[in-house]
Amino acid sequence: MAVTIGLVGTGTVGGGCIDILKNHHDDFLKHFGVDLELKRVCSQNPEQAIAHGVSDIFTRDYHELLDDPSIDIIIELVGGTTVAADIVLGALRAGKCVVTANKALMATRGQEVLDLAAEMEKEVAFEASVGGGIPIIGPLKHSLIANKITTVMGIVNGTTNYMLSAMEQEGLSYNEALASAQAKGFAEANPSNDVEGYDAAAKIAILASIAFNSRVTLDDVFVSGITKLTLADLQEAAAMGYVVKLLAIAHRTDQGIDVRVHPTMIPRSHQLAKVDGVFNAIYVVGDAVGETMFFGEGAGAGPAASAVMGDVIEVARHIQLGMKPVVGCTCTDDLPLVPTSELSMKYYIRFSVTDRIGVLAAMADVFARHGVSVYSVVQRGKQGGTVDLVYVTHTAKESDVQAVLEEMAELDDVLRDAPSLIRLEG
Amino acid sequence: MAVTIGLVGTGTVGGGCIDILKNHHDDFLKHFGVDLELKRVCSQNPEQAIAHGVSDIFTRDYHELLDDPSIDIIIELVGGTTVAADIVLGALRAGKCVVTANKALMATRGQEVLDLAAEMEKEVAFEASVGGGIPIIGPLKHSLIANKITTVMGIVNGTTNYMLSAMEQEGLSYNEALASAQAKGFAEANPSNDVEGYDAAAKIAILASIAFNSRVTLDDVFVSGITKLTLADLQEAAAMGYVVKLLAIAHRTDQGIDVRVHPTMIPRSHQLAKVDGVFNAIYVVGDAVGETMFFGEGAGAGPAASAVMGDVIEVARHIQLGMKPVVGCTCTDDLPLVPTSELSMKYYIRFSVTDRIGVLAAMADVFARHGVSVYSVVQRGKQGGTVDLVYVTHTAKESDVQAVLEEMAELDDVLRDAPSLIRLEG
Repeated sequence: MAVTIGLVGTGTVGGGCIDILKNHHDDFLKHFGVDLELKRVCSQNPEQAIAHGVSDIFTRDYHELLDDPSIDIIIELVGGTTVAADIVLGALRAGKCVVTANKALMATRGQEVLDLAAEMEKEVAFEASVGGGIPIIGPLKHSLIANKITTVMGIVNGTTNYMLSAMEQEGLSYNEALASAQAKGFAEANPSNDVEGYDAAAKIAILASIAFNSRVTLDDVFVSGITKLTLADLQEAAAMGYVVKLLAIAHRTDQGIDVRVHPTMIPRSHQLAKVDGVFNAIYVVGDAVGETMFFGEGAGAGPAASAVMGDVIEVARHIQLGMKPVVGCTCTDDLPLVPTSELSMKYYIRFSVTDRIGVLAAMADVFARHGVSVYSVVQRGKQGGTVDLVYVTHTAKESDVQAVLEEMAELDDVLRDAPSLIRLEG
Repeated sequence: MAVTIGLVGTGTVGGGCIDILKNHHDDFLKHFGVDLELKRVCSQNPEQAIAHGVSDIFTRDYHELLDDPSIDIIIELVGGTTVAADIVLGALRAGKCVVTANKALMATRGQEVLDLAAEMEKEVAFEASVGGGIPIIGPLKHSLIANKITTVMGIVNGTTNYMLSAMEQEGLSYNEALASAQAKGFAEANPSNDVEGYDAAAKIAILASIAFNSRVTLDDVFVSGITKLTLADLQEAAAMGYVVKLLAIAHRTDQGIDVRVHPTMIPRSHQLAKVDGVFNAIYVVGDAVGETMFFGEGAGAGPAASAVMGDVIEVARHIQLGMKPVVGCTCTDDLPLVPTSELSMKYYIRFSVTDRIGVLAAMADVFARHGVSVYSVVQRGKQGGTVDLVYVTHTAKESDVQAVLEEMAELDDVLRDAPSLIRLEG
C-alpha cells in the first residue's frame, strides 16, 4: 500500500524533492519496498508547480493537505516560524507524520513540536535542518548513541565559509567577498542572517540538544558574526599557522554546556581548517569514538532534498510496518548553560592605534591589571602614523578579556578603529 | 524490561563494550529508555574477563550463550569465518539478534547471514565491520537512501595509511614505516592482511553491497597492496601535486560496478588526501547529495566499541518495542561486475632501467604499439648507470597498460627492478 505525501513549499528544495520522487519512485519500491505517492502539493507559486509537472495536484491552501485524511506524511519546506508552525503542528494534530527542513522552527519551538508528536504518537524528522545533505542528526540519534558526546563543532553556514575562503585564498576584502558570494548566488541580497551568525546559531542549537540530551534554543546561543573581520586579521592568523572559520561550537564540561557561534582561529592541521568554500562539516567528539567528522554540501536543491527524502523514506518504512515512533525527543536532561563570560580560552586581539611613545606600555598595563596574560604581541607599522598591535593571549577568562576591551576603548585618543577579536579553539 | 546481552570475545573491542555497558548503563536507560543487561561473557581468555570484572558471568563455551533462552542479543567479536560463523548463524537460529564487527564474515558469507536473519525475523547489525567508530553503514542504510550512489571510496585501513603518511612526511622507507607501525602497535607481527589490501577489500565489499543494492563479496574485489611502493614513488607523486593512498574504491557506471583496492594517486586538494595517520575516511557520492565524507578513527577499543554498542542500543530499542526488523538485506539488484582489465583510467608507472642509448625510444614504442598515450615522462639519472623513467599516461585501458608492462618485462637486459604502477583517481 502506498504511503502518501503532501508537500508544502515548491522552491529549490521542494522542487528537488518532487524530482527525486519522480525519478526514483521505482528504485525505492524495489530496494526498500517503499511505495511513495505524492498526493498534493501546496505553495504560493503555481509556476513552480507547473515547472515540476505537478499542477494537477496543486493548491494554494495548505489546509487542504492537513484536512485530507488520506495523506500520511507532510513535508514542510516553507521555512520561518509562523505559517510553518501552523503547518507542522496542524499536521501532527491531524495525525500525520512530518518531515521538515526548518531550522528556525526546530531551534525555537522544537520542544513544543516534539511534545505534540509524542502525544500524537507520530514522527517528526528534520535531518535537512542542519548541514544540508550531510547525515548528522541520523548519526547523533543512532550510530553514536553509545557515546557521551563532549563536543559538536562545525562549519554549518556555506555563505560565510565561502566568503572567508575567498578572503583568505584570493586576498579579497570583506565587501568584495560578500559581493562575490552574492554574484554566485551563495549569499542573499540581505545577507544578515548568514553573516551575523544566526543561521549557524539555529543549527548548533539543534545539534547540541540532540548531542547533549538537553534542550538548547536559539536564545541560548552566544552569537557573533563575521562582519567585523578584515583581510588583515585573516592574514595575521595565516602567518601564525591558523585559519579563521565561523564555527558553531557546543561543548559539554563538568560545569554544564556552552553553545556559541563566532569567528574562530583553528590550527591549519585541524580537519575543519581544510573545509573550504560552500562545503559544510561537523566535527563530533565522543568519549568512545574519539574524533569524527561529517563533510558535504550544506545547501542546494540536491543535498537538502537528499536529506528530506531520506527522512521521508525512513518514516514511510515505519508507517508501512505499523510501527510507533522509535526515537522521539531525547532531551531527558536539563544541563546548566555556562555563560560565555565565564568561559576561558585563548584570544587574538588586534588594535589599530596611533604610533606614539608609551602606547605599548599603557596597553600592556591594561592587560596586566585584568589578569590577562599575553602570549605574543606583534607590532606592525602602517601608513599615516598608525600601527597594528596584534595580541594573542594565554588562556584567559572571557569576562576579563571583555574588561580589557572596555578599558582600551577609553584610550580613544590613540584607538583608530574598533579592535578585532577572534577566539581560538583546538 | 531489560534487554539481555551475551558477549563473545573479550579482546580489545569486547573489553571496550563491557566498559561502556558498565559506565553508561544508567545514561542509556535515562536518555533512550533502554535497559541493557550483560548476561553472559564468553572467550578463551578468563584473565581478560577478570580484568573487566565479569568473571562471575564468564564461560569458555559459547553454546551456553546460544542455548540460554533469556539472552536477546549476541555480540560476536571473535573474528574470522569459522567459529564466528557458528556463533552468528547459531544465534540467529536460536532466535536472537546479532551485532558483529566481523568484516571477513560479512564480506564472504553476508548473504547467508542476512537470509537466515530474514527467515528468523531477527536483526543483524554490523556497523563496526567498516571504519571503526565512523558511522557509515548507518548513513548508507538510512540518511542517504534517497540517492543513487555512484561512488564509495575510502581509506579504510589505518595501518597502511599510517605507513604511507610516515613515508611521505618523514621520508621513511617502506620497511622503516612498517617497523614504526609495528613498534606503535598499529601493525601486527604478520602484517600481510593489512599491507596486501585484504582487510580493505573486505570492507569495500560490504560498503559496495549496501551502496549499490547488489551483493559484492571479497572474491569480487580486485586487490593490490602497498608492498611494492617505494619512497621514490611517493616523492615523485608529491612533486606532481599528488598524494598516494591505499584506496578502497567502488564505482557504479552504466556498464556495472567495479570494486577494487590499490595504491592510488589523488590530487592534494582532494578531501581524502588530507586524511593522515591511523585515521579512516569514507567518501560517498550520490546523485542528489553530491560529495560527502565520513571521517574518524578506524580502529581501537573505543571507536569499535562505539559502533558495536550503537548497534546494540538500536537493536534493543526495536526489541523493547516488539518490532520486526526494519531494514534487512537490501541487495535487491544483481549488477554486473566490470573486470578491472576493462576499466580505463590514468596511470603512473616508474621503470628503473640501464642508462643506454635507445632505451627511451624502445619504451616509447611499446606504449605506442598498445595504444597507451603518454601524458608526461620524466627521466632522472641515478648512481650506477641506472635511470628512473616516470611515465604518467592519459586515460588508458587497464588491459592495454598490462600489455605494456608485459612487453616491457621482456626488456630484461635493461630493466633493473620490477616497475611501480600506481593508478590515478579524482
